[in-house]
Amino acid sequence: MASYLITGTSRGIGLAMARTLASKPVSEVSVELKQLVAQSAGRVKSIPVDVEDKPSVQAAAATVEQALAGRGLDVLINNVGIMPSTPNGIETMDDLDSVFHTNVTSAHIVTSAFLPLLKKGTQKKVINISTTLGSIAMAPRYALFPVPAYKISKAALNMLTVQYAHSFADQGFTFLTLSPGWVKTGLGGDRADLTTEQSVQGLLDIILPATQADNGKFINIRVPGWEKAEGMNQYDGAEAPW
Amino acid sequence: MASYLITGTSRGIGLAMARTLASKPVSEVSVELKQLVAQSAGRVKSIPVDVEDKPSVQAAAATVEQALAGRGLDVLINNVGIMPSTPNGIETMDDLDSVFHTNVTSAHIVTSAFLPLLKKGTQKKVINISTTLGSIAMAPRYALFPVPAYKISKAALNMLTVQYAHSFADQGFTFLTLSPGWVKTGLGGDRADLTTEQSVQGLLDIILPATQADNGKFINIRVPGWEKAEGMNQYDGAEAPW
Repeated sequence: MASYLITGTSRGIGLAMARTLASKPVSEVSVELKQLVAQSAGRVKSIPVDVEDKPSVQAAAATVEQALAGRGLDVLINNVGIMPSTPNGIETMDDLDSVFHTNVTSAHIVTSAFLPLLKKGTQKKVINISTTLGSIAMAPRYALFPVPAYKISKAALNMLTVQYAHSFADQGFTFLTLSPGWVKTGLGGDRADLTTEQSVQGLLDIILPATQADNGKFINIRVPGWEKAEGMNQYDGAEAPW
Repeated sequence: MASYLITGTSRGIGLAMARTLASKPVSEVSVELKQLVAQSAGRVKSIPVDVEDKPSVQAAAATVEQALAGRGLDVLINNVGIMPSTPNGIETMDDLDSVFHTNVTSAHIVTSAFLPLLKKGTQKKVINISTTLGSIAMAPRYALFPVPAYKISKAALNMLTVQYAHSFADQGFTFLTLSPGWVKTGLGGDRADLTTEQSVQGLLDIILPATQADNGKFINIRVPGWEKAEGMNQYDGAEAPW
């Protein structure tokens, strides 16, 4: 199997993705990352890292390099993200810098640190987990979601993805920015549309077959039965507008 | 005449815009802000402010409030911006946080601080100076411009603008994000397309007649003779894609 590095695996989409990629049966919500690692017969390794801190990420890259023993890293999934709410109006937003750092700068720090290993990999895929809430064109639809810093950071993450995509297109890379849907995680809450398993399946349905022809694309997941909601495209697998 | 607050007026587009709005003849490049103020018979006031620093902006808002003597502020133009280059590849970009703070967070700090005065104003216009380099859809066209942090910050500024636009649409506000073209300023350099006067005229041609119907739009300036360049839309006055 190819090598994957996933950030933000302690819970939510990241944990579910690691679980699915390791092809383990998912029977209990209480299954945690440690158990996943323990049950993986060495195929899943957990590397504690502060993705907001460049030296920490560089140390993790050195650890991964050693673990790969001369092979490259095939797929990097930048999944870390936070979504604090701003209930009293955008003019009271006081976390724009910190949300940007966590949601955008961390993806840049991780991508740049793992670039040498990715260049040696066979797939050269970098997946940034974004959201249609970061689509400026779709903003009217999400106007009532009071998470402006999150939306702004994800629009910026989309541009970061496209900038990397252009920079490394001629070296065989595929950079994607994907919308995982509204998922029942700590971030998404219980009222969300999708289980983590549905979301992760939708993400992997894009990631696994993706080719260089997809480089720089912003794609929404497709979830059977959820292609439309309230007459609008919902999880239809289409490219999302910027 | 309506009241305007323009940030970043010590040079470039901001200075030229203040000059044009004050309807002074522009005869010498060496005309500086101080002279503009001195020659304006009290119509132009300069208020030193660090737009990246909330207390400094709040103090400036108190000063402006006093100067307006009970009237509101009609138009706010967030013009501050920096464009450092990243010549050795996006993976070496080390100023993403600081460029974001200067180009996006400062606009948020200033807008939020002046919002009470703008609500009392007759026009309620907030203009953010963006750029088509911040258009994710247009990114392939600008792939060779090595300013990734600038591009990412301007995509984020566009989303900030749209978030404010939605939040204050029902209070009569008009938020716009405008592309001033490539201008011969300290930021744009000598090889740029337009003089500051051409750019400012193009900006004011959008700002002055703008109505609430334009709220949330991203508009490119129109410059006579520059509607097309190399067969592509250049400064055509059209809405730019996100």
